[in-house]
Amino acid sequence: MLWERIMAKIAVTGKGGVGKTTIAAGLARTFGSRGYRVIALDMDPSPNLASSLSCSPGEAATITPLVEMEELILERTGAPPQGGGMVFKVNPKVDDIPARFGISCRDGVRLLVLGSIRTGGSGCFCPANALARRLVDHLSGTADLLIMDMEAGVEHLGRGTTRTVEALLVVAEPTVKSVDAAGQIAKLARDLGITRIFGVVNKVRDGGGEPFISRLAALGVLPIGIMPFDPAVQQAEEDGVPVYDLPGGEGIRARIAGLASALEERLGPFGKLSWEKRS
Amino acid sequence: MLWERIMAKIAVTGKGGVGKTTIAAGLARTFGSRGYRVIALDMDPSPNLASSLSCSPGEAATITPLVEMEELILERTGAPPQGGGMVFKVNPKVDDIPARFGISCRDGVRLLVLGSIRTGGSGCFCPANALARRLVDHLSGTADLLIMDMEAGVEHLGRGTTRTVEALLVVAEPTVKSVDAAGQIAKLARDLGITRIFGVVNKVRDGGGEPFISRLAALGVLPIGIMPFDPAVQQAEEDGVPVYDLPGGEGIRARIAGLASALEERLGPFGKLSWEKRS
Repeated sequence: MLWERIMAKIAVTGKGGVGKTTIAAGLARTFGSRGYRVIALDMDPSPNLASSLSCSPGEAATITPLVEMEELILERTGAPPQGGGMVFKVNPKVDDIPARFGISCRDGVRLLVLGSIRTGGSGCFCPANALARRLVDHLSGTADLLIMDMEAGVEHLGRGTTRTVEALLVVAEPTVKSVDAAGQIAKLARDLGITRIFGVVNKVRDGGGEPFISRLAALGVLPIGIMPFDPAVQQAEEDGVPVYDLPGGEGIRARIAGLASALEERLGPFGKLSWEKRS
Repeated sequence: MLWERIMAKIAVTGKGGVGKTTIAAGLARTFGSRGYRVIALDMDPSPNLASSLSCSPGEAATITPLVEMEELILERTGAPPQGGGMVFKVNPKVDDIPARFGISCRDGVRLLVLGSIRTGGSGCFCPANALARRLVDHLSGTADLLIMDMEAGVEHLGRGTTRTVEALLVVAEPTVKSVDAAGQIAKLARDLGITRIFGVVNKVRDGGGEPFISRLAALGVLPIGIMPFDPAVQQAEEDGVPVYDLPGGEGIRARIAGLASALEERLGPFGKLSWEKRS
């Protein structure tokens, strides 16, 4: 018998360009500054979470993509499929993986990167996602919170472990297409057995978010926040700098802190606050 | 020996949220209104090109996704891989496919849809992309111009036929990340042998596009246009209506027309204007 901390796993999803990476990075830093041990996992084949997390560019350049550690991860999490079966290790040793392949960024956030598409025609990104799912299934105990910055859509999300908290944060803009995309994501997530599907409408101008919040709710996404359009975020995007540490970043920091608290309330106990019996 | 029209194939790509679908739809309609026979192919697993093309919603609901016609397409374009080899048909009969599986939208544009992810956990979208590539390789002669609205990234683009014109139009916003993503796309496209890589910077405010145009050029993307931020486009997105037919749509129509002319000049002869010797 073993007592183990519960790790919450949140995937930040949504249509392209809605602000997933900014929100994922902000949440990771907020939870990190609140004392949680946070792993941020960049699942985008065109990864740029490091920059939004204010990781040192020098260190970011040294990060080992998980896809390049495929053999080691497969060895640790179980034998690859052979013949008709698959052998899973129940207590694989993976707790050194975040330390070995990640880098430390501000507020104690540990960044892992799945990998990028390096060569045109080099193949499909699905096996890389399968590898990530496998690793994530085994990461419990290595941190309090895992925040995954996904590429658009949930086709690669797959089913996680049901023992740990599973949640999706779907980011939408105040446009019909992005809210409908959020609805499609929620539908696919439910197919995967994910029941905690939260939504946030980002970049709202002139207090116009309400109809989109209602539409999200009607599509099965539980709205937990509206974030106004923030010129400081737009300027930072234009300049290619992380908004979080800028003098103009107070607004986004405060709003992300509110979003983090809303998530904290709804995710149930996780991390250093609670322990779960594991047999 | 056979004389056949050259079909130009343009893939519209870029980071999420930059305006790919709006521009792809606008180009398709502009070329359609100029008398070209245009096929628009929605490659996004969360397809919404029909709406931007102002196709009738009733008809759009009846469209047959190409993935559901997999067997027929494989049968027409060659036997599926068996043993060690693959048999391609040189002159497969595919010219009825756009007519059978597409719908007609305004300005004579014929819309085809690859398909959507309908169920979470249903699998990888790579085989669907392989099917589309195979079909596209054989579509020459069925239209003058094929415009593909891609999902973000080029990992699914694959190598097209070299006999026909190949071009990428990479859409970027005035942000460092989206221009860097355009650079990554261009790099991957070159790996695939695509040499005509054009770029447009969209949603530019206050005449601030120049640094991004220069950066695009430095990354190997040939800039052919800057499009200003257009409140009418944003309003239409919020309302979920196609901007092209709105009273406020003159601006975007004029700018897309300019972009179409720039492409027409640079693509070389295609469609009804020219014929190519085929042996």
